[in-house]
Amino acid sequence: MSNNGAYEFDRDVAVTRTGTGVYARDLADGWRVGGGLNGGYLLAVIGTAVRDQLAATGKPDPVAVSAFYASAGVAGPAEVRVRPRREGGSLTTVAAELWQGEELRLTTLATYGDLGELEAGGDEHRVTAVEPDLPPRERCVPASMAPEGLKRSSRMLERFDMLFHPEQVGWAVGEPARKGIISAWYRLADGREPDPVSLLQALDALPPLTFDLGMPGWAPTLELTCHLRLRPAPGWLKVQHTTRNLAAGMFEEDCEVWDSAGRLVAQARQLARVPRPA
Amino acid sequence: MSNNGAYEFDRDVAVTRTGTGVYARDLADGWRVGGGLNGGYLLAVIGTAVRDQLAATGKPDPVAVSAFYASAGVAGPAEVRVRPRREGGSLTTVAAELWQGEELRLTTLATYGDLGELEAGGDEHRVTAVEPDLPPRERCVPASMAPEGLKRSSRMLERFDMLFHPEQVGWAVGEPARKGIISAWYRLADGREPDPVSLLQALDALPPLTFDLGMPGWAPTLELTCHLRLRPAPGWLKVQHTTRNLAAGMFEEDCEVWDSAGRLVAQARQLARVPRPA
Repeated sequence: MSNNGAYEFDRDVAVTRTGTGVYARDLADGWRVGGGLNGGYLLAVIGTAVRDQLAATGKPDPVAVSAFYASAGVAGPAEVRVRPRREGGSLTTVAAELWQGEELRLTTLATYGDLGELEAGGDEHRVTAVEPDLPPRERCVPASMAPEGLKRSSRMLERFDMLFHPEQVGWAVGEPARKGIISAWYRLADGREPDPVSLLQALDALPPLTFDLGMPGWAPTLELTCHLRLRPAPGWLKVQHTTRNLAAGMFEEDCEVWDSAGRLVAQARQLARVPRPA
Repeated sequence: MSNNGAYEFDRDVAVTRTGTGVYARDLADGWRVGGGLNGGYLLAVIGTAVRDQLAATGKPDPVAVSAFYASAGVAGPAEVRVRPRREGGSLTTVAAELWQGEELRLTTLATYGDLGELEAGGDEHRVTAVEPDLPPRERCVPASMAPEGLKRSSRMLERFDMLFHPEQVGWAVGEPARKGIISAWYRLADGREPDPVSLLQALDALPPLTFDLGMPGWAPTLELTCHLRLRPAPGWLKVQHTTRNLAAGMFEEDCEVWDSAGRLVAQARQLARVPRPA
């Protein structure tokens, strides 16, 4: 399933099968942010390769994906290598890695299933998580208003529309709120609707919470785990990052993605390193 | 480093190196809970093997560990297989799996480092997470008062002292609080002090939150990610599970472990399946 479709996202994550469990992809420079390509983009490339690998099994959706980042991805040729770990039942687990030449970029474990089937089979819903309270989009602050320096180093910002909560974007003008929360409206720039694979990108799209804490600079992800819970409804997403534990040079960042139907469709937690002082 | 020490936990997780990156362990029946051995125990066995593998590198501590559970572990012979994925810098990442015969029990990715060094190098501490508000231990409800049926199926409960918050243990007498929170005092039964490897067990020691939600039965873990943040001080730990998102037959379970010095030393999140109705 090489998605050479009409949409930019699909073109940028499409992979070509070159062997058993091996896929080629030229990583797109448009997803550059800071010193490398966005980790969520790399994860969506892996997610696309795994979806192809499992296409015949009726398990199209990532359900749980854990990624350990080894080195920063750069534009150019890359290879995804998928190794089955467990098959059978309603879920399948694989190991999948993204390599560029001799360099490992990220190593992952991923469980795939059919989210539609899981939702149909589970009638209990008890969600006490609270949908982010974002003002209407016209009152939010678009990423296109980001400082020029940030925009130059983050071509990724052109890939989606991102409208920040006006009270959580003080970091952009040197007045960080220091509350450990950033939330925003999000959709892919060309209107490509969300699906579980594109959510892998959305879960790592916002700026690091260290911006809000008054610590500018690159915050490299060590580990990122995504839980995909429901297939998202079409339309704008709400994405929220919070942190409650910055210590020992590392911080945890929790992400929630809510769909246009007001449902919590995905969660992620990452462990990242605090930026080094300039 | 085969820990045939004075303490039960050390004896039960000790491994014997049998080849390059291969370790043998007879899994101990004392960690049985429900239909299999406790997932946190299996993870601590893996954690011990990885620690041995990396003993020469000055990276004794698990920092981030993601585990995907493939099948239930049982008492008896098992093998841990460790494959290096990334070395260099202050952190090393490996893949490690636990096998019993032809059966994969769990597959993991793990990043190890030196938590003492990381703490010394990171002077910023901004923790807004709140220490669990547990009553004094003498007013809490010991796991030894658990219903006989639960104790019979959970030999693991003899391995540690666990004292539950009295307002969060109604599920034990058929009156679940249905608030999505369970917290308890915790220490290993023979007084063995906590360290980052034993925290891997503590992060998966409490009963599933579905008990509190009025859904008895086994809640199999699909995926569990642990972040070890600080080396714990000696003494009792406080362990807390919360859930905010039960949907589509699955629920997320967040765990925090606080040490006797009032510090958040470890966090975990797992994705588990809702128990099937009896």
